[in-house]
Amino acid sequence: MDKAQLRGLDIHQIRAHIRSGAYHGDTMGVADGHVQANLVVLPRSVAFEFMVFCQRNPKPCPLLDVTLPGSAVPVLLAPGADLRTDVPRYRVFRHGELVDEPTDIRSLWRDDLVAFLLGCSATFDNALRQAHMPLPFLARGAVPPVYRTAIECEPVGPFHGPVVVTMRPVPRDWVVKAVQLSGRFPSAHGTPVQVGYPEQIGVDLSRPIVGEPIELARDEVPVFWACGVTPQAVAQASRTEWMITHAPAHMFLADRHFEADAVV
Amino acid sequence: MDKAQLRGLDIHQIRAHIRSGAYHGDTMGVADGHVQANLVVLPRSVAFEFMVFCQRNPKPCPLLDVTLPGSAVPVLLAPGADLRTDVPRYRVFRHGELVDEPTDIRSLWRDDLVAFLLGCSATFDNALRQAHMPLPFLARGAVPPVYRTAIECEPVGPFHGPVVVTMRPVPRDWVVKAVQLSGRFPSAHGTPVQVGYPEQIGVDLSRPIVGEPIELARDEVPVFWACGVTPQAVAQASRTEWMITHAPAHMFLADRHFEADAVV
Repeated sequence: MDKAQLRGLDIHQIRAHIRSGAYHGDTMGVADGHVQANLVVLPRSVAFEFMVFCQRNPKPCPLLDVTLPGSAVPVLLAPGADLRTDVPRYRVFRHGELVDEPTDIRSLWRDDLVAFLLGCSATFDNALRQAHMPLPFLARGAVPPVYRTAIECEPVGPFHGPVVVTMRPVPRDWVVKAVQLSGRFPSAHGTPVQVGYPEQIGVDLSRPIVGEPIELARDEVPVFWACGVTPQAVAQASRTEWMITHAPAHMFLADRHFEADAVV
Repeated sequence: MDKAQLRGLDIHQIRAHIRSGAYHGDTMGVADGHVQANLVVLPRSVAFEFMVFCQRNPKPCPLLDVTLPGSAVPVLLAPGADLRTDVPRYRVFRHGELVDEPTDIRSLWRDDLVAFLLGCSATFDNALRQAHMPLPFLARGAVPPVYRTAIECEPVGPFHGPVVVTMRPVPRDWVVKAVQLSGRFPSAHGTPVQVGYPEQIGVDLSRPIVGEPIELARDEVPVFWACGVTPQAVAQASRTEWMITHAPAHMFLADRHFEADAVV
Protein backbone atom coordinates (compact mmCIF):
# COMPACT_ATOMS: atom_id res chain seq x y z
CA MET A 1 0.00 0.00 0.00
CA ASP A 2 1.46 3.39 -0.83
CA LYS A 3 0.89 6.86 0.57
CA ALA A 4 -1.39 8.03 -2.22
CA GLN A 5 -3.91 5.31 -1.30
CA LEU A 6 -4.37 6.89 2.14
CA ARG A 7 -5.65 10.11 0.64
CA GLY A 8 -9.25 10.88 1.53
CA LEU A 9 -9.39 8.27 4.31
CA ASP A 10 -10.31 9.36 7.84
CA ILE A 11 -7.92 9.02 10.76
CA HIS A 12 -9.47 5.75 11.99
CA GLN A 13 -9.21 4.16 8.55
CA ILE A 14 -5.61 5.31 8.19
CA ARG A 15 -4.67 3.92 11.62
CA ALA A 16 -6.42 0.65 10.78
CA HIS A 17 -4.18 0.28 7.71
CA ILE A 18 -1.13 1.04 9.83
CA ARG A 19 -2.29 -1.37 12.56
CA SER A 20 -2.79 -4.22 10.11
CA GLY A 21 0.67 -3.61 8.65
CA ALA A 22 -0.79 -2.74 5.23
CA TYR A 23 0.81 0.70 5.43
CA HIS A 24 4.28 1.05 6.94
CA GLY A 25 5.66 4.08 5.10
CA ASP A 26 6.36 7.57 6.37
CA THR A 27 3.54 9.88 7.49
CA MET A 28 4.74 13.17 6.02
CA GLY A 29 1.67 14.87 4.50
CA VAL A 30 -0.62 12.05 5.69
CA ALA A 31 -3.85 12.79 7.65
CA ASP A 32 -3.68 16.51 6.95
CA GLY A 33 -4.69 18.59 9.93
CA HIS A 34 -4.01 15.89 12.53
CA VAL A 35 -1.32 16.19 15.18
CA GLN A 36 1.62 13.88 14.51
CA ALA A 37 3.72 12.58 17.38
CA ASN A 38 7.12 11.08 18.15
CA LEU A 39 7.18 7.93 20.29
CA VAL A 40 9.50 6.91 23.14
CA VAL A 41 8.91 3.74 25.18
CA LEU A 42 10.91 3.13 28.36
CA PRO A 43 10.61 0.96 31.46
CA ARG A 44 8.98 2.51 34.51
CA SER A 45 12.28 2.43 36.39
CA VAL A 46 13.52 5.42 34.34
CA ALA A 47 10.17 6.93 33.30
CA PHE A 48 10.19 9.69 35.94
CA GLU A 49 13.70 10.78 35.00
CA PHE A 50 12.80 10.78 31.29
CA MET A 51 9.67 12.83 31.99
CA VAL A 52 11.80 15.38 33.87
CA PHE A 53 14.25 15.28 30.92
CA CYS A 54 11.37 16.28 28.62
CA GLN A 55 10.30 19.01 31.03
CA ARG A 56 13.81 20.50 31.00
CA ASN A 57 14.17 20.12 27.22
CA PRO A 58 10.78 21.33 25.99
CA LYS A 59 11.87 22.33 22.50
CA PRO A 60 13.12 18.92 21.35
CA CYS A 61 10.79 16.98 23.70
CA PRO A 62 7.38 18.69 24.05
CA LEU A 63 5.26 16.18 25.97
CA LEU A 64 1.82 15.55 24.51
CA ASP A 65 0.78 12.36 26.27
CA VAL A 66 2.21 9.79 28.67
CA THR A 67 0.77 6.36 29.43
CA LEU A 68 0.75 4.68 32.83
CA PRO A 69 2.92 1.55 33.19
CA GLY A 70 1.63 -1.29 31.02
CA SER A 71 -0.86 0.82 29.08
CA ALA A 72 -0.34 1.42 25.36
CA VAL A 73 -3.38 3.70 25.04
CA PRO A 74 -2.69 7.43 24.56
CA VAL A 75 -5.77 8.71 26.39
CA LEU A 76 -5.24 12.37 25.51
CA LEU A 77 -4.31 12.08 21.84
CA ALA A 78 -6.30 9.05 20.68
CA PRO A 79 -8.17 6.99 23.29
CA GLY A 80 -8.97 4.25 20.74
CA ALA A 81 -5.40 3.73 19.57
CA ASP A 82 -2.81 1.09 20.50
CA LEU A 83 0.78 2.31 20.52
CA ARG A 84 2.10 -1.25 20.07
CA THR A 85 0.67 -1.46 16.55
CA ASP A 86 -0.38 2.00 15.40
CA VAL A 87 2.99 3.46 14.42
CA PRO A 88 4.07 2.55 10.87
CA ARG A 89 7.60 1.60 11.86
CA TYR A 90 9.45 1.36 15.18
CA ARG A 91 13.06 1.35 16.23
CA VAL A 92 14.44 -0.81 19.03
CA PHE A 93 17.58 0.39 20.84
CA ARG A 94 19.59 -1.82 23.21
CA HIS A 95 22.51 -0.28 25.11
CA GLY A 96 22.26 2.62 22.65
CA GLU A 97 22.53 0.45 19.54
CA LEU A 98 19.75 0.34 16.97
CA VAL A 99 19.01 -3.40 16.77
CA ASP A 100 15.69 -3.67 14.91
CA GLU A 101 13.05 -1.72 12.96
CA PRO A 102 9.81 -3.71 13.35
CA THR A 103 6.32 -2.61 12.26
CA ASP A 104 4.70 -4.01 15.42
CA ILE A 105 6.00 -4.23 19.01
CA ARG A 106 3.36 -6.46 20.64
CA SER A 107 5.91 -9.22 21.24
CA LEU A 108 8.22 -6.74 23.01
CA TRP A 109 5.55 -5.18 25.22
CA ARG A 110 5.75 -5.56 29.00
CA ASP A 111 3.71 -4.58 32.05
CA ASP A 112 6.30 -2.06 33.23
CA LEU A 113 6.53 -0.07 29.99
CA VAL A 114 5.56 3.60 29.70
CA ALA A 115 4.98 5.33 26.36
CA PHE A 116 5.70 9.02 25.79
CA LEU A 117 4.31 10.93 22.81
CA LEU A 118 6.17 14.11 21.86
CA GLY A 119 5.07 16.85 19.48
CA CYS A 120 6.36 16.86 15.90
CA SER A 121 7.11 19.62 13.42
CA ALA A 122 4.93 17.87 10.80
CA THR A 123 2.13 19.51 12.80
CA PHE A 124 3.16 23.05 12.00
CA ASP A 125 4.06 22.16 8.41
CA ASN A 126 0.27 22.14 8.07
CA ALA A 127 0.11 25.70 9.40
CA LEU A 128 2.91 26.86 7.08
CA ARG A 129 1.13 25.28 4.11
CA GLN A 130 -2.18 26.88 5.05
CA ALA A 131 -0.43 30.26 5.14
CA HIS A 132 0.60 29.51 1.53
CA MET A 133 4.29 29.54 2.39
CA PRO A 134 6.26 28.13 -0.56
CA LEU A 135 7.67 24.79 0.65
CA PRO A 136 8.54 23.01 -2.60
CA PHE A 137 10.34 20.11 -0.87
CA LEU A 138 7.21 19.33 1.17
CA ALA A 139 5.02 19.55 -1.91
CA ARG A 140 7.33 16.91 -3.47
CA GLY A 141 6.62 14.67 -0.47
CA ALA A 142 10.24 14.88 0.71
CA VAL A 143 11.09 14.55 4.40
CA PRO A 144 12.93 17.52 5.95
CA PRO A 145 16.55 16.45 6.53
CA VAL A 146 17.50 15.76 10.14
CA TYR A 147 20.82 16.82 11.72
CA ARG A 148 22.65 16.21 14.97
CA THR A 149 23.75 19.57 16.46
CA ALA A 150 26.53 20.71 18.81
CA ILE A 151 23.86 21.88 21.29
CA GLU A 152 23.68 19.59 24.32
CA CYS A 153 20.35 18.77 25.93
CA GLU A 154 20.02 19.64 29.61
CA PRO A 155 21.07 16.27 31.11
CA VAL A 156 18.74 14.57 33.63
CA GLY A 157 19.61 11.38 35.50
CA PRO A 158 20.87 8.81 32.98
CA PHE A 159 19.80 10.85 29.93
CA HIS A 160 22.14 13.14 27.98
CA GLY A 161 22.94 13.81 24.34
CA PRO A 162 22.71 16.31 21.50
CA VAL A 163 19.68 18.26 20.33
CA VAL A 164 18.60 16.97 16.92
CA VAL A 165 16.99 19.36 14.42
CA THR A 166 15.10 19.36 11.14
CA MET A 167 15.98 21.86 8.43
CA ARG A 168 13.49 23.58 6.16
CA PRO A 169 14.54 25.96 3.38
CA VAL A 170 12.46 29.11 3.90
CA PRO A 171 12.29 31.97 1.38
CA ARG A 172 14.00 35.06 2.84
CA ASP A 173 10.84 37.10 2.98
CA TRP A 174 9.00 34.30 4.80
CA VAL A 175 11.43 33.91 7.70
CA VAL A 176 9.55 36.18 10.11
CA LYS A 177 6.26 34.47 9.29
CA ALA A 178 7.85 31.03 9.75
CA VAL A 179 9.08 32.01 13.23
CA GLN A 180 5.73 33.53 14.13
CA LEU A 181 3.59 30.63 12.87
CA SER A 182 5.72 27.86 14.38
CA GLY A 183 5.82 29.83 17.65
CA ARG A 184 2.08 29.27 17.94
CA PHE A 185 2.80 25.56 18.33
CA PRO A 186 5.06 25.22 21.37
CA SER A 187 3.96 21.62 21.67
CA ALA A 188 5.23 20.98 18.13
CA HIS A 189 8.77 22.30 18.93
CA GLY A 190 7.68 25.98 18.72
CA THR A 191 10.06 28.58 17.30
CA PRO A 192 13.25 27.60 15.45
CA VAL A 193 16.50 27.03 17.34
CA GLN A 194 18.54 28.69 14.58
CA VAL A 195 17.92 30.77 11.47
CA GLY A 196 20.43 31.02 8.67
CA TYR A 197 23.76 29.88 10.18
CA PRO A 198 24.12 26.08 10.36
CA GLU A 199 27.74 26.32 11.56
CA GLN A 200 26.55 28.16 14.70
CA ILE A 201 24.95 24.91 15.87
CA GLY A 202 27.57 22.59 14.47
CA VAL A 203 25.56 21.47 11.44
CA ASP A 204 27.07 20.53 8.09
CA LEU A 205 24.16 20.74 5.62
CA SER A 206 25.64 18.01 3.43
CA ARG A 207 25.50 15.43 6.26
CA PRO A 208 21.98 14.76 7.56
CA ILE A 209 21.48 11.73 9.82
CA VAL A 210 18.04 11.12 8.28
CA GLY A 211 16.86 12.04 4.79
CA GLU A 212 18.76 13.62 1.92
CA PRO A 213 20.39 17.07 1.80
CA ILE A 214 18.17 19.70 0.16
CA GLU A 215 19.73 22.13 -2.27
CA LEU A 216 18.99 25.70 -1.12
CA ALA A 217 17.70 28.08 -3.79
CA ARG A 218 19.37 31.49 -4.00
CA ASP A 219 16.61 33.25 -2.05
CA GLU A 220 16.21 30.50 0.59
CA VAL A 221 17.49 30.48 4.17
CA PRO A 222 18.05 27.24 6.14
CA VAL A 223 15.83 27.30 9.24
CA PHE A 224 16.35 24.73 12.02
CA TRP A 225 13.69 23.43 14.38
CA ALA A 226 14.23 21.06 17.31
CA CYS A 227 13.21 17.52 16.40
CA GLY A 228 11.64 14.57 18.20
CA VAL A 229 14.42 12.29 16.92
CA THR A 230 16.44 13.82 19.80
CA PRO A 231 15.57 10.96 22.23
CA GLN A 232 17.06 8.49 19.73
CA ALA A 233 20.34 10.45 19.75
CA VAL A 234 20.05 10.53 23.55
CA ALA A 235 19.62 6.73 23.68
CA GLN A 236 22.79 6.42 21.57
CA ALA A 237 24.81 8.97 23.56
CA SER A 238 23.61 7.65 26.95
CA ARG A 239 23.84 3.97 25.93
CA THR A 240 20.31 3.60 27.28
CA GLU A 241 19.76 -0.03 28.21
CA TRP A 242 16.46 -0.34 26.39
CA MET A 243 14.30 2.11 24.41
CA ILE A 244 11.72 1.76 21.64
CA THR A 245 10.92 4.74 19.41
CA HIS A 246 9.15 5.42 16.13
CA ALA A 247 11.36 5.33 13.03
CA PRO A 248 12.10 8.90 11.85
CA ALA A 249 9.24 10.40 9.78
CA HIS A 250 7.04 7.36 10.64
CA MET A 251 4.91 9.13 13.22
CA PHE A 252 1.93 8.33 15.38
CA LEU A 253 -1.18 10.03 13.97
CA ALA A 254 -3.46 11.48 16.66
CA ASP A 255 -7.21 12.03 16.70
CA ARG A 256 -6.51 15.60 17.81
CA HIS A 257 -6.47 18.30 15.15
CA PHE A 258 -3.53 20.65 15.08
CA GLU A 259 -5.73 23.74 15.42
CA ALA A 260 -6.76 22.69 18.91
CA ASP A 261 -3.13 22.86 19.85
CA ALA A 262 -2.98 26.64 19.50
CA VAL A 263 -5.81 27.10 21.99
CA VAL A 264 -5.25 26.96 25.75
CA MET B 1 8.30 41.74 59.41
CA ASP B 2 5.32 42.79 57.32
CA LYS B 3 4.66 42.85 53.60
CA ALA B 4 5.26 46.59 53.21
CA GLN B 5 8.87 46.14 54.35
CA LEU B 6 9.56 43.88 51.35
CA ARG B 7 8.78 46.66 48.90
CA GLY B 8 11.73 47.75 46.80
CA LEU B 9 13.82 44.69 47.72
CA ASP B 10 15.14 42.45 44.95
CA ILE B 11 14.13 38.81 44.64
CA HIS B 12 17.25 37.51 46.42
CA GLN B 13 16.74 39.83 49.37
CA ILE B 14 13.08 38.86 49.62
CA ARG B 15 13.90 35.14 49.52
CA ALA B 16 16.60 35.66 52.15
CA HIS B 17 13.98 37.16 54.49
CA ILE B 18 11.67 34.23 53.80
CA ARG B 19 14.53 31.73 54.27
CA SER B 20 15.51 33.18 57.64
CA GLY B 21 11.89 33.07 58.79
CA ALA B 22 11.74 36.87 59.16
CA TYR B 23 8.89 37.00 56.61
CA HIS B 24 6.25 34.26 56.67
CA GLY B 25 3.19 36.08 55.34
CA ASP B 26 1.40 35.73 52.01
CA THR B 27 3.09 36.71 48.73
CA MET B 28 0.17 38.40 46.96
CA GLY B 29 1.58 41.55 45.31
CA VAL B 30 5.11 40.72 46.49
CA ALA B 31 8.08 40.74 44.04
CA ASP B 32 6.08 42.31 41.27
CA GLY B 33 6.88 40.87 37.88
CA HIS B 34 8.27 37.57 39.20
CA VAL B 35 6.64 34.22 38.54
CA GLN B 36 4.98 32.80 41.68
CA ALA B 37 4.62 29.06 42.10
CA ASN B 38 2.62 26.45 44.01
CA LEU B 39 4.62 23.69 45.73
CA VAL B 40 3.93 19.97 46.00
CA VAL B 41 6.43 17.56 47.59
CA LEU B 42 5.94 13.80 47.29
CA PRO B 43 8.06 10.67 47.65
CA ARG B 44 9.63 9.29 44.50
CA SER B 45 7.42 6.19 44.71
CA VAL B 46 4.44 8.24 43.45
CA ALA B 47 6.30 11.06 41.65
CA PHE B 48 5.83 9.64 38.16
CA GLU B 49 2.08 9.19 38.68
CA PHE B 50 1.78 12.72 40.07
CA MET B 51 3.71 14.13 37.11
CA VAL B 52 1.32 12.35 34.73
CA PHE B 53 -1.57 13.71 36.84
CA CYS B 54 -0.23 17.24 36.18
CA GLN B 55 0.16 16.49 32.49
CA ARG B 56 -3.49 15.37 32.26
CA ASN B 57 -4.73 18.29 34.38
CA PRO B 58 -2.76 21.18 32.90
CA LYS B 59 -5.15 23.96 33.93
CA PRO B 60 -5.01 23.38 37.70
CA CYS B 61 -1.50 21.86 37.62
CA PRO B 62 0.73 23.58 35.03
CA LEU B 63 4.21 22.16 35.66
CA LEU B 64 6.98 24.74 35.84
CA ASP B 65 9.78 22.79 37.46
CA VAL B 66 10.43 19.36 38.98
CA THR B 67 13.41 18.34 41.12
CA LEU B 68 15.15 14.99 41.02
CA PRO B 69 14.80 12.80 44.14
CA GLY B 70 16.53 14.37 47.14
CA SER B 71 17.15 17.75 45.49
CA ALA B 72 15.35 20.85 46.80
CA VAL B 73 16.82 23.14 44.12
CA PRO B 74 14.43 24.33 41.39
CA VAL B 75 17.00 24.53 38.58
CA LEU B 76 14.66 26.11 36.02
CA LEU B 77 12.94 28.73 38.19
CA ALA B 78 15.63 29.71 40.69
CA PRO B 79 18.90 27.72 40.70
CA GLY B 80 20.05 29.43 43.92
CA ALA B 81 16.91 28.67 45.94
CA ASP B 82 16.18 25.96 48.51
CA LEU B 83 12.60 24.70 48.52
CA ARG B 84 12.92 23.46 52.13
CA THR B 85 13.22 27.02 53.45
CA ASP B 86 12.23 29.48 50.72
CA VAL B 87 8.44 29.22 50.92
CA PRO B 88 6.90 31.48 53.60
CA ARG B 89 4.62 28.78 54.99
CA TYR B 90 4.12 25.09 54.25
CA ARG B 91 1.38 22.57 54.85
CA VAL B 92 1.99 18.97 55.83
CA PHE B 93 -0.68 16.40 54.92
CA ARG B 94 -0.72 12.85 56.31
CA HIS B 95 -3.32 10.40 55.01
CA GLY B 96 -5.13 13.42 53.59
CA GLU B 97 -5.28 15.31 56.90
CA LEU B 98 -3.63 18.69 57.32
CA VAL B 99 -1.40 18.08 60.35
CA ASP B 100 1.00 21.06 60.44
CA GLU B 101 1.81 24.45 58.88
CA PRO B 102 5.54 24.99 59.46
CA THR B 103 7.70 27.77 57.98
CA ASP B 104 10.62 25.42 57.29
CA ILE B 105 10.67 21.74 56.24
CA ARG B 106 14.36 20.88 56.65
CA SER B 107 13.61 18.43 59.43
CA LEU B 108 11.06 16.62 57.23
CA TRP B 109 13.27 16.41 54.15
CA ARG B 110 14.37 12.99 52.85
CA ASP B 111 16.55 11.62 50.05
CA ASP B 112 13.57 10.22 48.18
CA LEU B 113 11.54 13.44 47.99
CA VAL B 114 10.64 15.17 44.74
CA ALA B 115 9.40 18.78 44.59
CA PHE B 116 6.98 20.02 41.93
CA LEU B 117 6.43 23.73 41.24
CA LEU B 118 3.16 24.63 39.52
CA GLY B 119 2.17 27.94 37.94
CA CYS B 120 0.03 30.39 39.91
CA SER B 121 -2.54 32.97 38.90
CA ALA B 122 -0.70 35.63 40.91
CA THR B 123 1.53 35.67 37.81
CA PHE B 124 -1.16 36.91 35.46
CA ASP B 125 -2.57 39.30 38.08
CA ASN B 126 0.54 41.27 37.13
CA ALA B 127 -0.52 41.27 33.48
CA LEU B 128 -4.08 42.32 34.36
CA ARG B 129 -2.73 45.16 36.48
CA GLN B 130 -0.36 46.31 33.76
CA ALA B 131 -3.33 46.45 31.37
CA HIS B 132 -4.92 48.84 33.92
CA MET B 133 -7.80 46.47 34.59
CA PRO B 134 -9.72 47.66 37.67
CA LEU B 135 -9.06 45.04 40.36
CA PRO B 136 -9.95 46.86 43.57
CA PHE B 137 -9.65 43.75 45.79
CA LEU B 138 -6.08 43.21 44.61
CA ALA B 139 -5.22 46.86 45.16
CA ARG B 140 -6.45 46.37 48.76
CA GLY B 141 -3.97 43.49 49.10
CA ALA B 142 -6.77 40.96 49.49
CA VAL B 143 -6.28 37.35 48.36
CA PRO B 144 -8.70 36.09 45.69
CA PRO B 145 -11.13 33.68 47.42
CA VAL B 146 -10.58 30.00 46.67
CA TYR B 147 -13.41 27.50 46.03
CA ARG B 148 -13.74 23.74 45.63
CA THR B 149 -15.72 22.97 42.44
CA ALA B 150 -17.89 20.10 41.25
CA ILE B 151 -15.45 19.52 38.37
CA GLU B 152 -13.39 16.37 38.88
CA CYS B 153 -9.75 16.24 37.89
CA GLU B 154 -8.77 13.54 35.43
CA PRO B 155 -7.72 10.80 37.90
CA VAL B 156 -4.26 9.21 37.54
CA GLY B 157 -3.05 6.30 39.66
CA PRO B 158 -3.70 7.13 43.32
CA PHE B 159 -4.59 10.78 42.64
CA HIS B 160 -8.15 12.05 42.26
CA GLY B 161 -10.20 14.97 43.56
CA PRO B 162 -11.94 18.22 42.65
CA VAL B 163 -10.59 21.13 40.63
CA VAL B 164 -10.08 24.12 42.94
CA VAL B 165 -10.51 27.66 41.56
CA THR B 166 -9.86 31.27 42.47
CA MET B 167 -12.51 33.91 41.82
CA ARG B 168 -11.83 37.44 40.66
CA PRO B 169 -14.59 40.01 40.19
CA VAL B 170 -14.11 41.42 36.67
CA PRO B 171 -15.96 44.48 35.33
CA ARG B 172 -18.37 43.38 32.56
CA ASP B 173 -16.55 45.25 29.84
CA TRP B 174 -13.21 43.72 30.86
CA VAL B 175 -14.25 40.06 30.61
CA VAL B 176 -12.98 39.54 27.06
CA LYS B 177 -9.66 41.19 27.91
CA ALA B 178 -9.36 39.09 31.09
CA VAL B 179 -9.82 35.89 29.06
CA GLN B 180 -7.40 37.05 26.40
CA LEU B 181 -4.67 38.22 28.80
CA SER B 182 -4.79 35.19 31.08
CA GLY B 183 -4.80 32.96 27.98
CA ARG B 184 -1.31 34.22 27.23
CA PHE B 185 -0.12 32.46 30.41
CA PRO B 186 -1.01 28.80 29.99
CA SER B 187 1.62 27.98 32.59
CA ALA B 188 -0.21 30.21 35.10
CA HIS B 189 -3.55 28.35 34.64
CA GLY B 190 -4.33 30.07 31.30
CA THR B 191 -7.92 31.00 30.44
CA PRO B 192 -10.74 30.87 33.03
CA VAL B 193 -12.67 27.65 33.60
CA GLN B 194 -15.94 29.57 34.04
CA VAL B 195 -17.25 33.08 33.48
CA GLY B 196 -20.30 34.41 35.28
CA TYR B 197 -22.16 31.31 36.54
CA PRO B 198 -20.71 29.87 39.78
CA GLU B 199 -23.56 27.33 40.11
CA GLN B 200 -22.44 25.74 36.79
CA ILE B 201 -19.30 24.51 38.53
CA GLY B 202 -20.89 23.85 41.91
CA VAL B 203 -19.57 26.97 43.61
CA ASP B 204 -21.41 28.87 46.36
CA LEU B 205 -19.76 32.30 46.42
CA SER B 206 -20.42 32.69 50.13
CA ARG B 207 -18.34 29.62 51.02
CA PRO B 208 -14.68 29.90 49.98
CA ILE B 209 -12.25 27.31 51.36
CA VAL B 210 -9.51 29.97 51.57
CA GLY B 211 -9.94 33.73 52.00
CA GLU B 212 -13.07 35.77 52.51
CA PRO B 213 -16.04 36.15 50.13
CA ILE B 214 -15.82 39.29 47.98
CA GLU B 215 -18.96 41.37 47.44
CA LEU B 216 -19.57 41.76 43.70
CA ALA B 217 -20.30 45.27 42.50
CA ARG B 218 -23.30 45.71 40.20
CA ASP B 219 -21.19 45.79 37.04
CA GLU B 220 -18.85 42.95 38.06
CA VAL B 221 -18.88 39.35 36.87
CA PRO B 222 -17.33 36.50 38.89
CA VAL B 223 -14.59 34.87 36.82
CA PHE B 224 -13.07 31.55 37.90
CA TRP B 225 -9.55 30.36 37.18
CA ALA B 226 -8.10 26.94 38.03
CA CYS B 227 -5.91 27.13 41.12
CA GLY B 228 -2.75 25.44 42.37
CA VAL B 229 -4.45 24.61 45.67
CA THR B 230 -6.00 21.72 43.68
CA PRO B 231 -3.27 19.22 44.76
CA GLN B 232 -4.18 19.94 48.41
CA ALA B 233 -7.82 19.03 47.69
CA VAL B 234 -6.51 15.98 45.84
CA ALA B 235 -4.42 14.94 48.88
CA GLN B 236 -7.58 15.22 51.00
CA ALA B 237 -9.85 13.38 48.54
CA SER B 238 -7.26 10.67 47.78
CA ARG B 239 -6.10 10.35 51.42
CA THR B 240 -2.56 10.67 50.11
CA GLU B 241 -0.20 9.06 52.61
CA TRP B 242 2.20 11.98 52.72
CA MET B 243 2.39 15.34 50.91
CA ILE B 244 3.91 18.72 51.69
CA THR B 245 2.61 21.84 49.93
CA HIS B 246 2.84 25.62 50.30
CA ALA B 247 0.12 27.22 52.41
CA PRO B 248 -2.46 28.94 50.14
CA ALA B 249 -1.30 32.39 48.95
CA HIS B 250 2.16 31.75 50.49
CA MET B 251 3.93 31.05 47.24
CA PHE B 252 7.45 30.31 46.07
CA LEU B 253 8.90 33.39 44.34
CA ALA B 254 10.96 32.56 41.25
CA ASP B 255 13.90 34.34 39.65
CA ARG B 256 12.03 34.13 36.36
CA HIS B 257 10.01 37.16 35.26
CA PHE B 258 6.47 36.57 34.19
CA GLU B 259 7.02 38.15 30.77
CA ALA B 260 9.37 35.35 29.82
CA ASP B 261 6.49 33.00 30.28
CA ALA B 262 4.60 34.33 27.27
CA VAL B 263 7.54 33.60 24.97
CA VAL B 264 8.25 30.14 23.57
